Amino acid sequence: MGTVAIGAPVNLRSDNVAGIAPEILAAIEAANAGSAPSYGADPITARLQDTFSELFETRCFVQPVATGTATNALALALIAPPYGAVYCSDVGHVHDSECGAGEFYTGGAKIVPLPAAHGRLHPETLRAALRKAGIGHTGRVQPAALNLTQATERGTVYQLDELDALVEVAREYGLRVHLDGARFANAIAALGRAPADLTWRRGVDVLSFGATKNGAMGAEAVVVFGEELAEPLRFRARRAGQVFSKMRFISAQLEAYVKDGLWLRLAANANAMAGRLAAGLRELPGIHLSHPVEINEIFATMPQRVIDGLLAAGFGLYDRGGGEVRLVTAFNNTQEQIDAFVAAARRLASVI
Amino acid sequence: MGTVAIGAPVNLRSDNVAGIAPEILAAIEAANAGSAPSYGADPITARLQDTFSELFETRCFVQPVATGTATNALALALIAPPYGAVYCSDVGHVHDSECGAGEFYTGGAKIVPLPAAHGRLHPETLRAALRKAGIGHTGRVQPAALNLTQATERGTVYQLDELDALVEVAREYGLRVHLDGARFANAIAALGRAPADLTWRRGVDVLSFGATKNGAMGAEAVVVFGEELAEPLRFRARRAGQVFSKMRFISAQLEAYVKDGLWLRLAANANAMAGRLAAGLRELPGIHLSHPVEINEIFATMPQRVIDGLLAAGFGLYDRGGGEVRLVTAFNNTQEQIDAFVAAARRLASVI
Amino acid sequence: MGTVAIGAPVNLRSDNVAGIAPEILAAIEAANAGSAPSYGADPITARLQDTFSELFETRCFVQPVATGTATNALALALIAPPYGAVYCSDVGHVHDSECGAGEFYTGGAKIVPLPAAHGRLHPETLRAALRKAGIGHTGRVQPAALNLTQATERGTVYQLDELDALVEVAREYGLRVHLDGARFANAIAALGRAPADLTWRRGVDVLSFGATKNGAMGAEAVVVFGEELAEPLRFRARRAGQVFSKMRFISAQLEAYVKDGLWLRLAANANAMAGRLAAGLRELPGIHLSHPVEINEIFATMPQRVIDGLLAAGFGLYDRGGGEVRLVTAFNNTQEQIDAFVAAARRLASVI
Amino acid sequence: MGTVAIGAPVNLRSDNVAGIAPEILAAIEAANAGSAPSYGADPITARLQDTFSELFETRCFVQPVATGTATNALALALIAPPYGAVYCSDVGHVHDSECGAGEFYTGGAKIVPLPAAHGRLHPETLRAALRKAGIGHTGRVQPAALNLTQATERGTVYQLDELDALVEVAREYGLRVHLDGARFANAIAALGRAPADLTWRRGVDVLSFGATKNGAMGAEAVVVFGEELAEPLRFRARRAGQVFSKMRFISAQLEAYVKDGLWLRLAANANAMAGRLAAGLRELPGIHLSHPVEINEIFATMPQRVIDGLLAAGFGLYDRGGGEVRLVTAFNNTQEQIDAFVAAARRLASVI
Repeated sequence: MGTVAIGAPVNLRSDNVAGIAPEILAAIEAANAGSAPSYGADPITARLQDTFSELFETRCFVQPVATGTATNALALALIAPPYGAVYCSDVGHVHDSECGAGEFYTGGAKIVPLPAAHGRLHPETLRAALRKAGIGHTGRVQPAALNLTQATERGTVYQLDELDALVEVAREYGLRVHLDGARFANAIAALGRAPADLTWRRGVDVLSFGATKNGAMGAEAVVVFGEELAEPLRFRARRAGQVFSKMRFISAQLEAYVKDGLWLRLAANANAMAGRLAAGLRELPGIHLSHPVEINEIFATMPQRVIDGLLAAGFGLYDRGGGEVRLVTAFNNTQEQIDAFVAAARRLASVI
Repeated sequence: MGTVAIGAPVNLRSDNVAGIAPEILAAIEAANAGSAPSYGADPITARLQDTFSELFETRCFVQPVATGTATNALALALIAPPYGAVYCSDVGHVHDSECGAGEFYTGGAKIVPLPAAHGRLHPETLRAALRKAGIGHTGRVQPAALNLTQATERGTVYQLDELDALVEVAREYGLRVHLDGARFANAIAALGRAPADLTWRRGVDVLSFGATKNGAMGAEAVVVFGEELAEPLRFRARRAGQVFSKMRFISAQLEAYVKDGLWLRLAANANAMAGRLAAGLRELPGIHLSHPVEINEIFATMPQRVIDGLLAAGFGLYDRGGGEVRLVTAFNNTQEQIDAFVAAARRLASVI
Repeated sequence: MGTVAIGAPVNLRSDNVAGIAPEILAAIEAANAGSAPSYGADPITARLQDTFSELFETRCFVQPVATGTATNALALALIAPPYGAVYCSDVGHVHDSECGAGEFYTGGAKIVPLPAAHGRLHPETLRAALRKAGIGHTGRVQPAALNLTQATERGTVYQLDELDALVEVAREYGLRVHLDGARFANAIAALGRAPADLTWRRGVDVLSFGATKNGAMGAEAVVVFGEELAEPLRFRARRAGQVFSKMRFISAQLEAYVKDGLWLRLAANANAMAGRLAAGLRELPGIHLSHPVEINEIFATMPQRVIDGLLAAGFGLYDRGGGEVRLVTAFNNTQEQIDAFVAAARRLASVI
Repeated sequence: MGTVAIGAPVNLRSDNVAGIAPEILAAIEAANAGSAPSYGADPITARLQDTFSELFETRCFVQPVATGTATNALALALIAPPYGAVYCSDVGHVHDSECGAGEFYTGGAKIVPLPAAHGRLHPETLRAALRKAGIGHTGRVQPAALNLTQATERGTVYQLDELDALVEVAREYGLRVHLDGARFANAIAALGRAPADLTWRRGVDVLSFGATKNGAMGAEAVVVFGEELAEPLRFRARRAGQVFSKMRFISAQLEAYVKDGLWLRLAANANAMAGRLAAGLRELPGIHLSHPVEINEIFATMPQRVIDGLLAAGFGLYDRGGGEVRLVTAFNNTQEQIDAFVAAARRLASVI
């Protein structure tokens, strides 16, 4: 699959180093026929509302936007007032990887990171924070929203009962819930559950629906479950410069992405490649996986000479410092690529 | 050119109803080979810095973003503090077509529309406003920036001496200058001058460089002339959710757009089609052009039955109400399409 | 009344050049007994809720703040989203005298000035603007709020039926209504109606209740009619740095201000002095009143030599340029002061 | 001193439960003579610039504002861009006691709390955070400012060499420095150094100069050392609704506060009372001081029955939960009050 030359060392630095899946590129090309109304008034965008409502088994509203950062920031702005607090894990993308987009879009809400193991926030950690939050005390920002990432930034997933427990705490304190689904497809593929089961049936109010990391060119969507959030979303998105004039080309990507289960096949491949990679690395001397490998991300510690050797050999990886790397497999990685990576790591790790 | 079926009535509602120019689509496809670093660290984006610096005959910094609204709002945020005033024409896109994006990105600066004839702001109008602005009086927002649109929202262009006169007033009052170039190519094509002649040589500090209206899929850029604005731009763009992870696909569009003069050929066609359309309409009874036709936009008043008849026949136009329409020709319109539009208008206008 | 030395030329530049009314200063002094809970938990602030609810004949919530600008900006932030438009008159204080505070507090809403005669907005002007506002069009900020100033910035008042007509248009378009009552007492005194009659009975959602211009040291209040605005107000005020730790001293001013009708007596004096002044000026050659004099503000055109002569003689006035001055009488001006001003003007105006 | 009735149990909940020092109230009364220009154009405010410049032994600019929250938020907005990070201690007032004012005024900068012992940030903690901050990485907010509180929120002070070490790290990473001096007088009194020695001579760029907690009615000031921050400060303050129309009454408080060393005498009394209280409590069974007592604040753990007993007896204290209380002495507390508190605590603590 894809256009990667045989033999070229695979780039596992991130899944967003991969290109566009053929089906999605074809959809862009097909959407180029004729003229179409702009700013989302085109037929493809209109169809997308129905497609997603069917996919999620409930009426929902979909706003296609440019980037994952935009989806998250828009989502938070819908559910947290400027004087609100947004709780997330201490590795939450909204906290430390988006240059303060959440603060910008919300008008200055406070994003509160909480300690999390393997990227997963624990309900009691959330409850403890909320107990000390000073609810009603005007000196304190007021708890407004819970941000969860599914799959997490550490390559793990929340099980359904874990989500239930978190949302129960959130509801107890009146928080609304945002799910950052930058790798939502990988989570779905890993858990084998319907999108609805991981979102509104669990109490999620708004979803960042990612597609770019899993084969789109540049297409993400904010999905809101609940009519009253749709209008603010439309205006906030426009005001943020996130409404494409030629929206059809973004919507076409999203349409192709979910059509006939493409998104899940792509995610399943990425997940399987990570599993294969993890199995290979796990056996190597001096290499230890930092977290359970549940989707397409691997964090591993290894001797620096192995890291340097892999980079020197042309493999792509994210050197996090301190002997830890992140490896992310993509929709179009192949077994051959993964096996070549493991083989190279084995050679480097075996040298004494 | 393009995929429009022969005989289909042309859609002149806006130039953004058109699709992607073949050369640009091809560039997207070509950029899909292999993996590439994300968030702008890819080779295409790196090349783009040089390409634009050459194009503008000076070292400049280019930030590709999603939409024209984003370019404008980012540009204003670079040159106006939250307590600043941004002066523009009363038909300025930043004033009334971007849902307050400028206010959002600047942190609440005030956008001050000034009366303008045919979309062109007059230096004395600007000077009169600045004289009354209350400079130094803390009760008043402080003049900070001048926003000019080239070509204007009424389909006209500023001549070089007009720009000089406006910038002179701006400089006298310490304003920095933003040029909204959503249709910059059309202006360049109309004026036959180098990009540098219309920007930094005239005193422009920051340019919204549009490509989407003229054949790109979705690619715009903020271009800053002056090193000190580059860093704030990079961070503000990321924070705004405007930095694509797969940036190469946006940069590839921009690269193809300016390569070998494609952008000017596309704009020249659009301009020529508007000229042809204007010539045809001008002769029809009851139809009057509202403004000089200098690029690819036509504003015309016509009997409502003509408007309704054109719409009923399947032609696209923007009915502004009160008997005025806007017609915008695109990079891929053909003489046949234009002639068919004129013929239909003639038939409708001739009925008594 | 007050400490102005007999014979000192009166300062009519603004009503905020006056000091503190004796009763209010005494209340500050009395509030200094003992300790008191901070940040509004003190007994005086608690009483204030009841006092104002009684005064306004409905349960309302009062947030004492530092300045009139703060009351207005907080009020607008309660009723306009960041993508909203706030309509006001073209001399609205929120538009041109608060350094963009409204834009700041709302997160970048657009304040839209509409032409007004004698400071009074006309319902049809508002309706015409709303018709063109592009409701539902994401490119346009959405009409959210109507800002009215009572008494107006030109020294006039809205009659009850005028308010009704304006609010009717506002309601038709879903706008909420803010009344800027920087000189609310003067309006009440002029109209002889109950506070309720000028506010919630007319459909006002939130009131800026001014006291500083009419004898307080520095005490204003946001008054909200409707429980759902009280909580956002409390947090927005704190976040804006508008909640005094020693709140009792602000609340004490407000309590004394409205006690036993003090505020109306003070306003009545100011209004009467303006009436006396207007009567005197009206008869002088070359002096013309620009607007009806309905409260304590006078706008008048006069020969520049008269203006200069008054200033040279030590009188205070606000020279607006172009031969127009603003004169504002205060709670503590005396007939002697006013008569001396008129006499001086007469001498200057009579010289040929 | 003051009007507290003999025998009334002292309220040590905070120093802001105290009233106005007689000298400061007298200054307010004196400032009430005659009229004065508004919005800071009065003679008292003009004098204040000189008074503070003399006090700080350098030309500085003083902006009087309403609250400590406002001083801090304005200060941060002057030195941190919206995409900036502000580092502070994990008990920093700007982080957890101002309802997100810093985020609001800066346009959404991120306030980053760092672990601190006894309220004092350690230079190596700061350095470690800065090393991991991702400088230059657009995904991360960029280090911009260091916020220090002097005296700290735990009743301790930074020694001069500690400040030097912190500022050295800040300068190494290009941070500007804000000193939150809500209890600046208490720190000065404790350290016996000149104001300049604790501010600009240490590298402080902007100071929150507190007066309210130490005897003012409601008067704080932002003091900037460096001309280029003065203009943004003036406009940001106005825009924030922080510029009083009758500014003279705020300036008069500040003038009286620093005149003839009043501020230091008041602070010295508060500090001495805390020292006396600490000495008394330290000897009681089951009572432990949590932090060194260096100014007028005491944190102590004690049996809940002692806490409850003190409250039942009418003493004011801040029960922080978990058996810890905060006690803050004020400018007007007396030895008799303190001794009575200790005696009551002794009785309660001795019961078994």
